[in-house]
Amino acid sequence: MNSCSKPAPNQEHLASVSEFRRDPLNGGWVIIATERGKRPSDFGSVRNERKPGPCVFCSGHEWETPPEVLAFRSPESTPDAPGWTVRVVPNKYAAVGINARLDRNMDNLFDSMTGIGMHEVVIETPDHDANLCDLSVDHIASVLAAYQDRARVMMDDVRIEYVQIFKNWGSVAGASQEHSHAQIIGLPIVPRFVNEQIQCAQAHRTATGRCLLCDIVREELARKDRIVKATTDFVAIAPYASRFPFEVHICPRRHESDFIDASEELLHGMARILKEVLFGLRIALIDPPFNFMIQTRPRVAPGGRWSHPDEFHWHLEIIPRLTQVAGFEWGTGFYINPTPPEQAAQFLRDVLIPIQLVGQS
Amino acid sequence: MNSCSKPAPNQEHLASVSEFRRDPLNGGWVIIATERGKRPSDFGSVRNERKPGPCVFCSGHEWETPPEVLAFRSPESTPDAPGWTVRVVPNKYAAVGINARLDRNMDNLFDSMTGIGMHEVVIETPDHDANLCDLSVDHIASVLAAYQDRARVMMDDVRIEYVQIFKNWGSVAGASQEHSHAQIIGLPIVPRFVNEQIQCAQAHRTATGRCLLCDIVREELARKDRIVKATTDFVAIAPYASRFPFEVHICPRRHESDFIDASEELLHGMARILKEVLFGLRIALIDPPFNFMIQTRPRVAPGGRWSHPDEFHWHLEIIPRLTQVAGFEWGTGFYINPTPPEQAAQFLRDVLIPIQLVGQS
Repeated sequence: MNSCSKPAPNQEHLASVSEFRRDPLNGGWVIIATERGKRPSDFGSVRNERKPGPCVFCSGHEWETPPEVLAFRSPESTPDAPGWTVRVVPNKYAAVGINARLDRNMDNLFDSMTGIGMHEVVIETPDHDANLCDLSVDHIASVLAAYQDRARVMMDDVRIEYVQIFKNWGSVAGASQEHSHAQIIGLPIVPRFVNEQIQCAQAHRTATGRCLLCDIVREELARKDRIVKATTDFVAIAPYASRFPFEVHICPRRHESDFIDASEELLHGMARILKEVLFGLRIALIDPPFNFMIQTRPRVAPGGRWSHPDEFHWHLEIIPRLTQVAGFEWGTGFYINPTPPEQAAQFLRDVLIPIQLVGQS
Repeated sequence: MNSCSKPAPNQEHLASVSEFRRDPLNGGWVIIATERGKRPSDFGSVRNERKPGPCVFCSGHEWETPPEVLAFRSPESTPDAPGWTVRVVPNKYAAVGINARLDRNMDNLFDSMTGIGMHEVVIETPDHDANLCDLSVDHIASVLAAYQDRARVMMDDVRIEYVQIFKNWGSVAGASQEHSHAQIIGLPIVPRFVNEQIQCAQAHRTATGRCLLCDIVREELARKDRIVKATTDFVAIAPYASRFPFEVHICPRRHESDFIDASEELLHGMARILKEVLFGLRIALIDPPFNFMIQTRPRVAPGGRWSHPDEFHWHLEIIPRLTQVAGFEWGTGFYINPTPPEQAAQFLRDVLIPIQLVGQS
């Protein structure tokens, strides 16, 4: 058996059609296809398959969940019975629990900590079949208010350093229940992704005195090509270094540090743009599986000091789950994105304009 | 509509059955279920569905790929024709290409770089239906030698700072072709995950004067409970802070910095343990989708100086893809792993022992 090694590869197959982009928010890199970007129809096989209800999250099945910790319900209704629009319950299969001492242990090279924290589920609607973007703006605003209320309760516990609010829609996106819901996990450690964002924000603030995301928002509004939608209070951006096709970040236009401090009016504005963006993604990508995460200011910053309101600007990140994360991403922490965000923004704008014309926004 | 917020959640559903563990290799955290860990049969629905061949990677279809850059083939055969056992070709759909100037650009907040690099495919067998672990130890050793040969060629280009070798097996793991293959991407930037490992290794070396992974290997061998398999030259470990159920790392027992410097004898030892571990995973999890990645020493370390041979210890990381990565992971960079590595190691040992008894190892 011989080794037959040729000096040079055939270069015609290696045309350079991609670009490395550094994510200004966290310092990570993505490789973005700059030619022949994948269009929505190229992801045609990723669809949410839905089973009919009722399920444990449906109205009338309240006894199948742990007792509610928060509900928005009609005055004549009683807890853990029908009559609610949004309902929050402890997660029956919690990743972390609150009934333990927070022990931090070290065993030679191996550090651990008791799995302390809180893990709750926000059931966003009593209707099994509703998609979050089908709900009214007022209803979505109350969903956001429920996220906020429970995050605030969790942050009242001094052991909790960060609250991660996230939504999984579709089994491909990790949802074990199809009924529209989100999850809230209070953690005793600040997540590494949040730390990375703070480190980048700190470097920018040291250099310029300004908030990094405020500057990004201003710059994107001036350039326009990655703007999906702009309202009075918010802007939806296909971020410069999008890790995933059709990734969208929704950011308050003015500096807002902490999601739990957002006013009722701001949450209403958020509900409006969130409904529209999710509706646009549903139309463009035919009800794709997705995750969204609300990224907000942690209690402490890297190094252990209290975080400063200038060094975080809360926002919501939506990632449609159209591509598989594979060995390259798991080895490097870099991402390969086949759809340039400029094209994604254009597609979504094209979908959203007719919706506005018929007055559905 | 009323807000009905109760003072305390029902705690019985929040029993603390998990533990936060810090990954000594990279500083990340995982949440590991320490009670009622998921057993292999709990992941029953994740299977590789395979379509019959032939495909573009099959023997007799060489004209459907770009011309080969390396092949191990019989002396009487000719390039790009049958007669090979392992064949390397440029990736037809390369994420990066080598025919461009390496331009580094800055446009206000937005840094970019031309998508320069090399992207090749290692076709590991001419047989469409073979699983890597079906091949002989000699054949697997020649697959590893092909990885190494091409990684060396890529590192000869001064623009390349790191070579990521990875394998995707099964569509769920991101494989677009079912025929057994791996990919090699030469990158002009050191991946963030590699930088994180170097930073942890540097801190350990500064504190102790020793290699971090050497110490981990020694410690795991002494404890035994996370050892899947140990041979003269290698150890297969279910790592302390496994991100995924049944994650396995295969590490050289003695300090080996760079995969491209591994001796032929060492690659043979690697082939032997890799075959056995992959075979064990196939039996225990019924041919699961998986990724593996070879993590090795980069050209430069964080800060821009040359990397030092003491601060990296190459190894291979195998991650079966049994669970979905969801909003929590995308928001935090933390992982929730339902199977403690101690249990995973026990399951895999239980599977591997009978194989040894009948002499198949």
